[in-house]
Amino acid sequence: MKKKYNVAIVGATGAVGQTMLQILEERNFPVNNILPLASSRSNGNVIKFCGKEVKVQEASPSSFSGIDIALFSAGKSVSTELAPEAVKHGAVVIDNSNAFRLDNEVPLVVPEVNPEDLRGHKGIIANPNCSTIQMVVVLKPIHDVAKVKRVVVSTYQAVSGTGLEAIEELKTQSKAILEGEKAIKNEVYPYQIAFNTLPHIDVFDDTGYSLEEWKMVHETRKILDDTIAVTATTVRVPVMNCHSEAVNVETYEKISVEKVREILAKAPGVKVEDAPKELKYPMPIYVSGKDDVYVGRIREDFSIDCGLNLWIVGDNLRKGAALNAVQIAETMIKDNLI
Amino acid sequence: MKKKYNVAIVGATGAVGQTMLQILEERNFPVNNILPLASSRSNGNVIKFCGKEVKVQEASPSSFSGIDIALFSAGKSVSTELAPEAVKHGAVVIDNSNAFRLDNEVPLVVPEVNPEDLRGHKGIIANPNCSTIQMVVVLKPIHDVAKVKRVVVSTYQAVSGTGLEAIEELKTQSKAILEGEKAIKNEVYPYQIAFNTLPHIDVFDDTGYSLEEWKMVHETRKILDDTIAVTATTVRVPVMNCHSEAVNVETYEKISVEKVREILAKAPGVKVEDAPKELKYPMPIYVSGKDDVYVGRIREDFSIDCGLNLWIVGDNLRKGAALNAVQIAETMIKDNLI
Repeated sequence: MKKKYNVAIVGATGAVGQTMLQILEERNFPVNNILPLASSRSNGNVIKFCGKEVKVQEASPSSFSGIDIALFSAGKSVSTELAPEAVKHGAVVIDNSNAFRLDNEVPLVVPEVNPEDLRGHKGIIANPNCSTIQMVVVLKPIHDVAKVKRVVVSTYQAVSGTGLEAIEELKTQSKAILEGEKAIKNEVYPYQIAFNTLPHIDVFDDTGYSLEEWKMVHETRKILDDTIAVTATTVRVPVMNCHSEAVNVETYEKISVEKVREILAKAPGVKVEDAPKELKYPMPIYVSGKDDVYVGRIREDFSIDCGLNLWIVGDNLRKGAALNAVQIAETMIKDNLI
Repeated sequence: MKKKYNVAIVGATGAVGQTMLQILEERNFPVNNILPLASSRSNGNVIKFCGKEVKVQEASPSSFSGIDIALFSAGKSVSTELAPEAVKHGAVVIDNSNAFRLDNEVPLVVPEVNPEDLRGHKGIIANPNCSTIQMVVVLKPIHDVAKVKRVVVSTYQAVSGTGLEAIEELKTQSKAILEGEKAIKNEVYPYQIAFNTLPHIDVFDDTGYSLEEWKMVHETRKILDDTIAVTATTVRVPVMNCHSEAVNVETYEKISVEKVREILAKAPGVKVEDAPKELKYPMPIYVSGKDDVYVGRIREDFSIDCGLNLWIVGDNLRKGAALNAVQIAETMIKDNLI
């Protein structure tokens, strides 16, 4: 009989946690027992999993006894505190926070890109940043053929990446503005996000870069190839779900747009939607809820010898977070690493 | 006594036309008579100018008798038909459409950048594309010091650039979505713009580029320097007014971020707002209604030797259209070119 696993979800009531539960169910993940964990605020809440109601428990160091796989999505401080505890109890941790991503001992994995990095893991696997995942899934097949030299990326990131309270804030603010209210409240973001762009995701350092921008630089290099030069501008836009990215790529080898379309059409986890004259290009409202990363607006960049422009849209809660974490677990089961 | 001018506004009832009237008034432009022109649909409408009510008339080839300056913003076909008629009647035409911008006989001017191109004009002056204007105002002082080699730009463009009906569509769609309606109507754009990103501005050609993207390439070169390599991805976002741009610049000479801030702080028409740790960066909701182009998030691009990242936000109805047109007229008056 196929082995089944006891799975804990840390941050089960959040936007990513809820999507994790949904995806485990959709994919018939071999769950024996599910253990939804959250902060004391959600203690006693009930979630539904495979038709059964399950009580949410408060996450603590002792929560992980008997757990095989712990999917963490409750922020950096929770991961820093509890992930090592889960590992001590024998669980494999797949962590969606920024706590361990650049740790040399921790694999940072997108299964379509670098599954081999899972080998020799020490208990914690890091799930990359949402905006990085959807970019590297598309860059990988191009890198294999033409070797990527440099990437200039500008993001258009949805509020769902911040959490359920940010989705509420976008809705509440939009409604207030449409009703002509003057005093618009900001609680989640420092400024109004409705009908605005906010060039500010995560904290800034002395270089003027935000942490989100550095994540795209360093994580891309760790996952794909540490010779790739990356620069990023990350921007929040008033979109509920799905990040969009304008990605400019310079390669060492010349590659035609036709060839790019051909290799991306065959690439795992990628869907090419690229016929702009027929109004076919990826957009958040249609990619939301989809597992694949969508790419379109594939064009030669005529400003350099070996350049490409791409428009990449991915569901940041699914492939950008929950789905990628579950796929890591599936890959590890398949390769006998759990 | 200071000379006064008879000024026609073609497209006076549109978003840009209304802003033109407002700006002429704000700046005490030396108007003798104002003549608001529009299509037959608006014939008989009344606009207010300097406290007086003025009837909108239907634009026709014979409208321009006695007109000194005609500001056109009624689309390419109206400009193509009527601008030469206005010139025949002795008017100077400042045209906001795409009809004449790349015509070798027609100056394409941003007064802070290339006012000298107005000399020797033949009656028609082209006002550049909104997204180009705000970019070149910021690039010019950098180009003077460090010589710009290549620009990679991604835009976040407001719906006001499409017109008043697009602002209405964004409002109506947003309201419908917030009220839970399922059937969302698109009349102005091919898809829903509310809570979405639309990587489609103007028509596509066989290269996969949109005309808006080509405008940024060719107009930047015509205005600033035809050796500059430009590639662009232009995207509509659910913002009412003000375009944002993530601009990656490669220069021939190395220039420090401090030097860039210093020269931009002194640049005409530019406002530096760049202290991200103190939450200071340009955003559409605060730039709307402002004449200056705002720039922030000024950073070294560490992926190349001489690179910069900039975040530029401008009011596309004002500096991106109406204000720039009025400034062209003011410059021509000052230089005795009208």
